[in-house]
Parts: sequence; C-alpha cells; structure tokens
Amino acid sequence: MSFHVALVHFPIIDKHGQAVCTSVTNLDIHDISRAGTTYAADGVWLVHPYEAQQRFIRRVLRHWKEGWGSQYNPSRRESLAATELVDDLGEVSRRIEAAEGRPPIFVGTHAAPLANSVSYRSLRARIDAEPEVPFCIVFGTGWGLHPEAMEEMDLMLDPIYGPCPWNHLSVRAAIGIILDRLRGKDHPLIES
Amino acid sequence: MSFHVALVHFPIIDKHGQAVCTSVTNLDIHDISRAGTTYAADGVWLVHPYEAQQRFIRRVLRHWKEGWGSQYNPSRRESLAATELVDDLGEVSRRIEAAEGRPPIFVGTHAAPLANSVSYRSLRARIDAEPEVPFCIVFGTGWGLHPEAMEEMDLMLDPIYGPCPWNHLSVRAAIGIILDRLRGKDHPLIES
Repeated sequence: MSFHVALVHFPIIDKHGQAVCTSVTNLDIHDISRAGTTYAADGVWLVHPYEAQQRFIRRVLRHWKEGWGSQYNPSRRESLAATELVDDLGEVSRRIEAAEGRPPIFVGTHAAPLANSVSYRSLRARIDAEPEVPFCIVFGTGWGLHPEAMEEMDLMLDPIYGPCPWNHLSVRAAIGIILDRLRGKDHPLIES
Repeated sequence: MSFHVALVHFPIIDKHGQAVCTSVTNLDIHDISRAGTTYAADGVWLVHPYEAQQRFIRRVLRHWKEGWGSQYNPSRRESLAATELVDDLGEVSRRIEAAEGRPPIFVGTHAAPLANSVSYRSLRARIDAEPEVPFCIVFGTGWGLHPEAMEEMDLMLDPIYGPCPWNHLSVRAAIGIILDRLRGKDHPLIES
C-alpha cells in the first residue's frame, strides 16, 4: 500500500468563490511534510503550476534537504524526504502509476457538507483493507478546492466539525486532523 | 463547563534543550484561534512575557478584531473573538478563577513519552463528566514546554503517534489534532 498527501494551489477558490492560484506559504511546506512524515506518507506532493512559485519551493526544499538547513536541523531534512514539487495532480497520478502500476484514488477534502462524501471511519477501513491501492488525500489552500478540482476527485471526505457549526480551520490544522483520523496509531478514540 | 487553549512562548526549550523565549509566529495566532473556535474554546490564551512581542500580538489582534481586517475577512474576526494576550499562565489561572470561581486544570502537551501521561480517551471522558471544571490545554512553541512549565501542569497528555515513531508535528497541526481528539463532534472514530 502507498499513502500520499497533496497540497493544491490551483485551481482554488478565493473568498468570493472565484478561481485563483494561491501563493505558496513557507510554513505550509513544512507543516504538510511534518504531518505526512508523522503519518508515514510515501509521498507529499506540492502542486503548483507557476514557474516563479516553483523556484521558491525548490529553493526551500534544497535548503532543508541538501543545503545548510539539512545540517542545522536534520529533523527538517527527515520530514521533507518524501516531499516533491509537481505541476498538477495529473503529474502525481502519472508518477504514482509509473512507480506502482496503478494510479491513486484521489480523495478530496472540503469544509462544507457535500452530497455523497465518505466518512473517516469508512475510508480508514478501506485503506487498511485494500493494501494494493495507492490513496492520495488532496488539500486545497485559499478557501478550498475549486469545483473543477473536486471533479477530478474519486471520493470526497466529510467535513470536520467540533461542537459547533463554525469550522474555518487552517489547512495546516486540517491536514493534521485528517491524517490523524485516517492513520493515527493506537488512536485513543478507536476501540482496540 | 469551560474549555481553554493556551500557546506558550516562555519557558520553552530550543533544540539543545536550553530554556528560551520564542518569537511569536503570525500564523500561530490565527491557527490556534481558528482551531479553538472550531472546537468551541471559551478562551484562547496567547502567553508571551515580552513587551515588544506583546505589541506585535496586540497589533495583529486589533487589525483583525476591530480594524480593516475585521471587514475584509469577518471569519478572522469571529475566530479571534475569544483570543487574548497574557503575560503568563498565572494570569490565565487568575482570570479563569475570577470568571468562574475556580482555577483551571492545566493539561500540558509533549511530543515525547512521559511517565503518568493521560490518554485522550480518559481526558475526553473527564471533560464531559466534570462540567463544573474549567480545563486549559497548554501547547509549547519551539521544541516544546520547558520542564519548569511542565511542573506547573496538573496533567500531561500522551504524545501523538502515527504508524511510525517519528512525530515532529508542527504546533499548528498538533493543536488541531489534540482538540479534535478531545472535542471532535460526531467523531468518526468514536463508536456512537
């Protein structure tokens, strides 16, 4: 089995629901990589189509994976080991298929309720039950994945709620919560 | 019942285990407030002892709670409604006691195993069972709470693990995960 996470910067919606491309946030690179490594992701895919932003991402990755930062803070090198920059989700699909013989199941995330979204419990069980299938959990930056990006998804996950209807989590927190729900070990909330 | 979260910048350890005071990270202010609001925290306490950093924090809070930002992005105003700046955890304790007649149970978090740490399941049950008791979950920046800060805690929570021993999560992700484990509604991993 392989398990992947992807952070998408295009096509994303802004607060008016318009399609935009978001700038990369330096901390997002680290936070998704640290969460991905904690939850044993085989691939952490940073998805950005624009060359200027790709140069910035490459420079950050080089600094921590090979440059001065890799000695200064080896924990960052470890966390970024599986992190790669790609143009789009099509490239993620092709690279996983090339490595494993089949494309991943793309699982999108969204803060609002959607028809036919799947529960964490059922997806967790499916990931455990289908070890031959690569899964890729897809997170949107900005105000979330554009409907066109959601159409590319094979599944959409349920939104996350606490005790109230307000759930404007940061993508950094949402990535942690969702990976924990899907992959937390000895998860204290699961009957063992 | 009241439920609180606190983000501590002193005393914190650096990567050598030395006591330091960390600078505040702008995104941390937003991320802990957004997670706190999602999980219905009654108070989100930003703990920093230094005047120069306090000025920065006040400026950020003012911009989003009252200034231009409050109109530009009302969601930020909502998320920061319960967020306050304090000098230290003693001030948190006094203010909660003044409001509720008793000081909070401070619950510390740490990435490494500790003797006598409590499970998420047991703390979640206790929070639900003791509605008259305020609880405050305490998060450290940097490389985590200094032992002196941990001595102030009434309880320490278990560390978080995925499928492997590596668990260097960002504080932004850890806050989300821990609040979800303690307060996630219709949590898909809890038998209903």
